[in-house]
Amino acid sequence: MSWNTFGRVFRFTTWGESHGPALGAVVDGCPPGLPLEEAAIQPFLDARKPGTSKFTTQRREPDEVRILSGVFEGRTTGTPISLMIKNTDQRSKDYSEVAKAYRPGHADYAYDAKYGFRDYRGGGRSSARETAARVAAGAVARLVIPEVTILAYVSEIGGDAINREAFDFTQIRQNPFFCPDAEAAKRWETLVDEARLAGSSLGAVVECVATGVPAGWGAPLYAKLDADLAAAMMGINAVKGVEIGDGFNAARLRGEENADPMFPGEAGGPEFAANHAGGIAGGISTGQPVVVRVAFKPTSSILIPQDTVTRDGEATKLATKGRHDPCVGIRGTPVVEAMMALVLADHKMLHRAQVG
Amino acid sequence: MSWNTFGRVFRFTTWGESHGPALGAVVDGCPPGLPLEEAAIQPFLDARKPGTSKFTTQRREPDEVRILSGVFEGRTTGTPISLMIKNTDQRSKDYSEVAKAYRPGHADYAYDAKYGFRDYRGGGRSSARETAARVAAGAVARLVIPEVTILAYVSEIGGDAINREAFDFTQIRQNPFFCPDAEAAKRWETLVDEARLAGSSLGAVVECVATGVPAGWGAPLYAKLDADLAAAMMGINAVKGVEIGDGFNAARLRGEENADPMFPGEAGGPEFAANHAGGIAGGISTGQPVVVRVAFKPTSSILIPQDTVTRDGEATKLATKGRHDPCVGIRGTPVVEAMMALVLADHKMLHRAQVG
Amino acid sequence: MSWNTFGRVFRFTTWGESHGPALGAVVDGCPPGLPLEEAAIQPFLDARKPGTSKFTTQRREPDEVRILSGVFEGRTTGTPISLMIKNTDQRSKDYSEVAKAYRPGHADYAYDAKYGFRDYRGGGRSSARETAARVAAGAVARLVIPEVTILAYVSEIGGDAINREAFDFTQIRQNPFFCPDAEAAKRWETLVDEARLAGSSLGAVVECVATGVPAGWGAPLYAKLDADLAAAMMGINAVKGVEIGDGFNAARLRGEENADPMFPGEAGGPEFAANHAGGIAGGISTGQPVVVRVAFKPTSSILIPQDTVTRDGEATKLATKGRHDPCVGIRGTPVVEAMMALVLADHKMLHRAQVG
Amino acid sequence: MSWNTFGRVFRFTTWGESHGPALGAVVDGCPPGLPLEEAAIQPFLDARKPGTSKFTTQRREPDEVRILSGVFEGRTTGTPISLMIKNTDQRSKDYSEVAKAYRPGHADYAYDAKYGFRDYRGGGRSSARETAARVAAGAVARLVIPEVTILAYVSEIGGDAINREAFDFTQIRQNPFFCPDAEAAKRWETLVDEARLAGSSLGAVVECVATGVPAGWGAPLYAKLDADLAAAMMGINAVKGVEIGDGFNAARLRGEENADPMFPGEAGGPEFAANHAGGIAGGISTGQPVVVRVAFKPTSSILIPQDTVTRDGEATKLATKGRHDPCVGIRGTPVVEAMMALVLADHKMLHRAQVG
Repeated sequence: MSWNTFGRVFRFTTWGESHGPALGAVVDGCPPGLPLEEAAIQPFLDARKPGTSKFTTQRREPDEVRILSGVFEGRTTGTPISLMIKNTDQRSKDYSEVAKAYRPGHADYAYDAKYGFRDYRGGGRSSARETAARVAAGAVARLVIPEVTILAYVSEIGGDAINREAFDFTQIRQNPFFCPDAEAAKRWETLVDEARLAGSSLGAVVECVATGVPAGWGAPLYAKLDADLAAAMMGINAVKGVEIGDGFNAARLRGEENADPMFPGEAGGPEFAANHAGGIAGGISTGQPVVVRVAFKPTSSILIPQDTVTRDGEATKLATKGRHDPCVGIRGTPVVEAMMALVLADHKMLHRAQVG
Repeated sequence: MSWNTFGRVFRFTTWGESHGPALGAVVDGCPPGLPLEEAAIQPFLDARKPGTSKFTTQRREPDEVRILSGVFEGRTTGTPISLMIKNTDQRSKDYSEVAKAYRPGHADYAYDAKYGFRDYRGGGRSSARETAARVAAGAVARLVIPEVTILAYVSEIGGDAINREAFDFTQIRQNPFFCPDAEAAKRWETLVDEARLAGSSLGAVVECVATGVPAGWGAPLYAKLDADLAAAMMGINAVKGVEIGDGFNAARLRGEENADPMFPGEAGGPEFAANHAGGIAGGISTGQPVVVRVAFKPTSSILIPQDTVTRDGEATKLATKGRHDPCVGIRGTPVVEAMMALVLADHKMLHRAQVG
Repeated sequence: MSWNTFGRVFRFTTWGESHGPALGAVVDGCPPGLPLEEAAIQPFLDARKPGTSKFTTQRREPDEVRILSGVFEGRTTGTPISLMIKNTDQRSKDYSEVAKAYRPGHADYAYDAKYGFRDYRGGGRSSARETAARVAAGAVARLVIPEVTILAYVSEIGGDAINREAFDFTQIRQNPFFCPDAEAAKRWETLVDEARLAGSSLGAVVECVATGVPAGWGAPLYAKLDADLAAAMMGINAVKGVEIGDGFNAARLRGEENADPMFPGEAGGPEFAANHAGGIAGGISTGQPVVVRVAFKPTSSILIPQDTVTRDGEATKLATKGRHDPCVGIRGTPVVEAMMALVLADHKMLHRAQVG
Repeated sequence: MSWNTFGRVFRFTTWGESHGPALGAVVDGCPPGLPLEEAAIQPFLDARKPGTSKFTTQRREPDEVRILSGVFEGRTTGTPISLMIKNTDQRSKDYSEVAKAYRPGHADYAYDAKYGFRDYRGGGRSSARETAARVAAGAVARLVIPEVTILAYVSEIGGDAINREAFDFTQIRQNPFFCPDAEAAKRWETLVDEARLAGSSLGAVVECVATGVPAGWGAPLYAKLDADLAAAMMGINAVKGVEIGDGFNAARLRGEENADPMFPGEAGGPEFAANHAGGIAGGISTGQPVVVRVAFKPTSSILIPQDTVTRDGEATKLATKGRHDPCVGIRGTPVVEAMMALVLADHKMLHRAQVG
């Protein structure tokens, strides 16, 4: 199947291929009257934009967004918001190799097995360029949840983790890695550059924290807040794992260690002495920060030749030339933030629908 | 919101509380003509059933399923299949304590924050008893995908993992832990019993492998097979993490280590030299086994008193008496299998819809 | 396909066959805290109940509803409400004739063509008995929209229409036809009885008016209030036409005749000098009464033998014996009301989701 | 709410306002491998295009469609197809009157009541220009159902109906009214021109027949083929009534008159002696032609001044200047065809999903 719509009441639909004329998103269900202009979306796209350092792909795309509908006199009208981003740097090159053989770790074989053929130019629809549309839609979603602050950062690259003691929010936008630990950022420069020069790639872990989410958002049992976040994150290109709160580590704690004790709070609601749960219990937010952790595999496109087969079933070796991120997790960070915003906006509205 | 339906074309809707008269599932979209009787569902429910060993809750429920619609002369008619399971062992007890105070780690506070009040008897709708309905629905889903074999097992309890060298499928149903390693199962007896006697609880990791899934199932980009599996698993009670294939470990590999090289296969399609991807690329199955790993937190209900607050915002201490699983991950194993079956059945049908 | 769920945020799913053990509905998304007990649903089921006069089928069903979940201490909890109605009068009879041959006008052939076989007992899933589940769900929906009053009545039977001058709301529940015109009700006694004795059947037109719907409900463009009402009504058994406001008659008016002029109203909003639009413009309610008209065909089950074919493709003649309504439109009236309530409850909540 | 997506597996989402830069549709779920180019869509848009005769609005729009994604080397890839149509003739004019006062019969007041404000230029999102996007999407849907032939025509304008005896399919594209009766077309010239010159408008009835639909498409009970068609048609601008088969007339027939007797057919399935049912029984196609009839009200925009109120609640008179269709039903004809195609494509795929 093809299923390019996400969300239940706040919904968006994306379209576009890596080497088509453009890509975009249609955001539907947005509340009316919110101030929106292209300049409010652009900074989020700029954060995801390729070609800004040697640690990301060298494809140069301005990723300028244009609003084609749903905004009148600077405010959302409540009708669908069409966002379009033109592709400008689809380098004309010889795709005959990738057209004929399947790149290991890529969706090439799976798309062919499903659809019988594929747009092989730059990965077509399976390209991470599509995430630009998510980021644009996410910028709109943020307007729906002004009470929430969302922050994502890279906590680990190639197995080298940040030092939690050295965590400094102000660092995140000061290095090309969205890294909150200045020391780690330094180490990663060497690490990522080495992989890049070796024609290899590295994985990464991205963490995302949403503060200000009130208690009560979520839709048990099959649209739980954590289940929807898991789907949102696992659907990002190259993601292979998702954790809420302590995640897999919670499986190694005893009940009394994993508990989040409650005490009388000042604002009426309880205060929690810990947040192992990552701000979600029974699929519903508890008022604590919502914490998600996302594992990105190393970029599949590497220069080191790998064994594979052609469309005709013959053995061959393939090295993926072209321009690629040595670590896709880095530019995945703004995408994780966008998906968090999109899920939360949807659940705020769903909660309002039922409870008023 | 309340959202108790899962799936896109093969769908099911569950209902029921821990201490209500019954619980159930309505399975909709099932293909017609499949042989179905209650006896085909019961073994799966029996595997999840409480009270079968001292390592699970002592609540005794026969969990006998009844088919109320959608089957005629032993075959599915293509119309909704209503499955009902009566609750029989709702022990009459004094719920005043849990009605007044919030159990830490439970959905008590979140439900109250959302809905204003809650059915506190046995956790109401947030009780893991609901998963019986999933298991029943999953048994129907299996009929839709006879080409697929699904097997889940516990790979780790309380941080103590199985020995992969000693993996033996035939062991899984021979111990009360769904453990494929006879040695580990022995150790876990002591481990779980100790936690139980201490009034504590343990977490677990459950792995699930689906073999026989052909290449091509999945619905990019917002109903990817892995994204739907992530939602399905994260929505199970007590789950805090989901991995596909190598999961978080993939984030620590280099590109060439994580690659799954392809070679010409005998059956026409390629053969893979590895399965780091867990059988899914670009959200679409590759023909390799689909591998999911799920982290269960330790049961929140423990006898060790914890700090919490009352509904009136006053500090108190609460020990959760009653009958509880010392390790919910164990009985979560058949639930993981059921959710895998439900997602795969849906995606088989979605694929057929588009591609024929 | 099989698709037994209706609604977008206020949703219900029905199940059950005419001659199965029971039928039911699962209502999901209902706001919490609403007072609900079986006695609040029963009167609506009683209005639809068969066997209350000689003008309806003689099948005797108490249609007693039981609430199995979603209500605690007399109030809705916000979780799924499972409603069950037992079948009690499935007369054991010889179905061999209807099993072998297709009743003209019935879904027999279509079900066989779709599913390959069918539960032929009493029409199986295609039986109008299913509408009992809608009526039960509709009673819950009414709790969500206390500001709205819904009233349906029969305006025409067998081509004999009521006299609009003689319209009297108080008459509607005083005759077996839901007829607001005492004179017409008298005529219909003869009319329907004649058709019944002749082994024939009659069609009917049902009108439904919802007052108190505020301006602003609706979801342009593909979940317009009128589009959702059209789907809701056209999906009722035996319905072949739906009109909003003047409906087909509007196609015969000139623009200036069809206009609903507005004047300054007392309550702030405008007052309308007419309601040709039936309370809906651009898919959104205008604050005027919402008016829907529904055409029911004559019951297909008649004693007069008709030409048909057997499952094996041989010519035969079939007279549908058994107990049938001589005019299904009559008992369709409470079903029309229920569907109106279900659509309006959903749209009230959808509107709240977006606009707050 | 805002809900701009239609369909269940074959889905499309539209966006755009009358006076924005462009409008479009994203078609998702389309099978792969279908030959598609802009030239295959354009003829359908041309049939709906304004400004082609004096009987339609004088706004001149080339309505040239551009395919932005989802097609590679002339074939659909199975991924979302983005279709865009630029607006070129948004005449700059003074909108202050319509910004301040509500046009009776229009969605002006309803949109303001819902969203708090509106894009008043040319009706904004509620403009019938949106239907161009439906027609474009419908052209794609037709590729999915090559076995089906869809034909719509105007059967009545301003109460003046065609003569069924004079029905001639070849006439339909030979006059500006999609009229199958040459005589009627002549009369309508005078009729529509008179209304136009008088500053008035006329309603119309459009019929649509789909032949070649096999028995078995449809999704009982809440996505019945007729229910989905009713929603599809009632959601078209200016539509107030929908009939399947004999529609309201069926309510005036006796059971034996309304029956569609079956006889052994040559192709294995039955042959029907009549088609009162309009090709649908129990929500499922019977193999007969699917027949839908749609009532369009007269255009609300007329030059004859009407009583209305301003946004501030003051009485005023408003004559809708600008360029308008004297009879919107005429250009609604290709839109009805498109919605029929979109519903049938969806149901063909839904049926395939369940039954294979």
